[in-house]
Amino acid sequence: MPVNTYLIPDKEQIANAAAKIAPFIHQTPVLTSDYLNQLIEGKFFFKCENFQKVGAFKSRGAVNALLSLGKDELLAGVATHSSGNHAQALARAAAIMKTKAYIIMPDNAPAVKVEAVKTYGGVISFCEPTLKAREETLNEVVEKTGATFIHPYNDLKIITGQASCAMELLHQTSKLDYIFCPVGGGGLLSGTALSAKYWSPKTKVIGCEPQGADDAYRSFVSGKFVPSENPKTIADGLLTSLGTLTFPIILNHVDSILTVNDSEIISAMKLVWERMKIIIEPSAAVPLAVALSGQIDLEGKNVGVIFSGGNVDLKKLPWL
Amino acid sequence: MPVNTYLIPDKEQIANAAAKIAPFIHQTPVLTSDYLNQLIEGKFFFKCENFQKVGAFKSRGAVNALLSLGKDELLAGVATHSSGNHAQALARAAAIMKTKAYIIMPDNAPAVKVEAVKTYGGVISFCEPTLKAREETLNEVVEKTGATFIHPYNDLKIITGQASCAMELLHQTSKLDYIFCPVGGGGLLSGTALSAKYWSPKTKVIGCEPQGADDAYRSFVSGKFVPSENPKTIADGLLTSLGTLTFPIILNHVDSILTVNDSEIISAMKLVWERMKIIIEPSAAVPLAVALSGQIDLEGKNVGVIFSGGNVDLKKLPWL
Repeated sequence: MPVNTYLIPDKEQIANAAAKIAPFIHQTPVLTSDYLNQLIEGKFFFKCENFQKVGAFKSRGAVNALLSLGKDELLAGVATHSSGNHAQALARAAAIMKTKAYIIMPDNAPAVKVEAVKTYGGVISFCEPTLKAREETLNEVVEKTGATFIHPYNDLKIITGQASCAMELLHQTSKLDYIFCPVGGGGLLSGTALSAKYWSPKTKVIGCEPQGADDAYRSFVSGKFVPSENPKTIADGLLTSLGTLTFPIILNHVDSILTVNDSEIISAMKLVWERMKIIIEPSAAVPLAVALSGQIDLEGKNVGVIFSGGNVDLKKLPWL
Repeated sequence: MPVNTYLIPDKEQIANAAAKIAPFIHQTPVLTSDYLNQLIEGKFFFKCENFQKVGAFKSRGAVNALLSLGKDELLAGVATHSSGNHAQALARAAAIMKTKAYIIMPDNAPAVKVEAVKTYGGVISFCEPTLKAREETLNEVVEKTGATFIHPYNDLKIITGQASCAMELLHQTSKLDYIFCPVGGGGLLSGTALSAKYWSPKTKVIGCEPQGADDAYRSFVSGKFVPSENPKTIADGLLTSLGTLTFPIILNHVDSILTVNDSEIISAMKLVWERMKIIIEPSAAVPLAVALSGQIDLEGKNVGVIFSGGNVDLKKLPWL
């Protein structure tokens, strides 16, 4: 993919999106922890998207996507295939705009996730748990309803919305040397890299990925798209492949992608629960796990970490 | 106990204590939740002492007690019998003042609590798990070391320190109609009632207690001290009896004491974890459980709730 032809949201578009979505999302707090600071001999600044609406940063992109639709498009509703935070975020955003969100879910999706989408008024269509069935069902729903398909990450409006998170973090803190950000499909990471480029170009952006789903790492180091195949990790929000929009942004504006194993992820997650008394999901613990892994010397550094979400089945904790 | 002869910290003493302890504790945030607001059709303001140093409000009183000692007393150290948050808080406060905390613990105390006190440098003496053994061991330690005994709640410096929590809450919010506060020995509740009296006399203070340890409720309604006997509740921070200092303050300045059962406590706790993404311990969930129980109509009201602590064994969650 030639470097000069990829599409990126510009600074003004991100700032405008942040302003537009502000009434519908939380400006989440940035927390600190003396205990965790001691472990790196530096200073952590944790951007708490676990406190975001629906418990994840996904609300930012979803609201931005809905606000960007024309009147007729909005009337017809939106659709997506997801059983995760994007589905909830889209259902909530649609409810706010008084339209419908059609959510395609595999028929083996956990009841707790189905219920969460229903809580926000999402209209669920079940399909067999295969990529083919998912895409066919999505196409059918879109054809029947005229709804606009909102991809979970490979969508400029989604990337622009997610970018507002790092923009906020950079305004809430001063002089971050690093931002550690999780990477699954790359919506949050590409948005974070752009916001750093625009508002704090000296801040290095580190993509953080589970070893059991290291397609972004392999894509990044080889410079060629590597799909996610049979990913296996506790960080269930980070299983997907990069997208055609997110990959080139990441390749050009992210400084490094580093990986950690599930045991490191679980330890980091438990440390946050025990020491900070806040709930983060496994995917959200990946950046802290990377920061604590010693792969980068953080002594004396100001380190932003994005806690991307806090949706956990409290009956199935990974350390039990 | 005649109403006019009991001892109470005055407004200036509480304000001074708050200023003195400020460098050593967190001014904890006040959080809100649209979801929980809907349940009462009012507005909640949650004072998050689960984010306090050592994970509980007990740090306030402990630091204030240590700061109030003379030079020679400080040199000899402090002592207490506790296996809970007071022990950790006292050990930490002693470490800050570069002196020793002697902690008497039953020899069947959970390893996790023993470790927590050791982390803060506490010097532990084990004894048999009886009141008699505990008091004898405490006396021996005090005799041998010259340490000052710091009672977990029946101590004016402790009450004064704990009072700083509601003082802060009242400064961080405006026009609270109620403050819901847990009651065990009454250190936090008596301090809360005094701060409300001084800084917001129209705010009603509601003591909140588990049905399985309702000695404060029975003492309050009868006007006569009823000891805690064979308490049985998930809220393990609220098992103790009121003290000779805390009871009269509570009797004269608390508006009501209400109780909830363990199932209501666990539901409230889980709701906070799920919806607010923060960790509170069972004792800290008691005031919210009372607020959600419908015993008081909170429609249109501004309701302060003290989340007193967040120390939970993450391997033993009450809903598992």
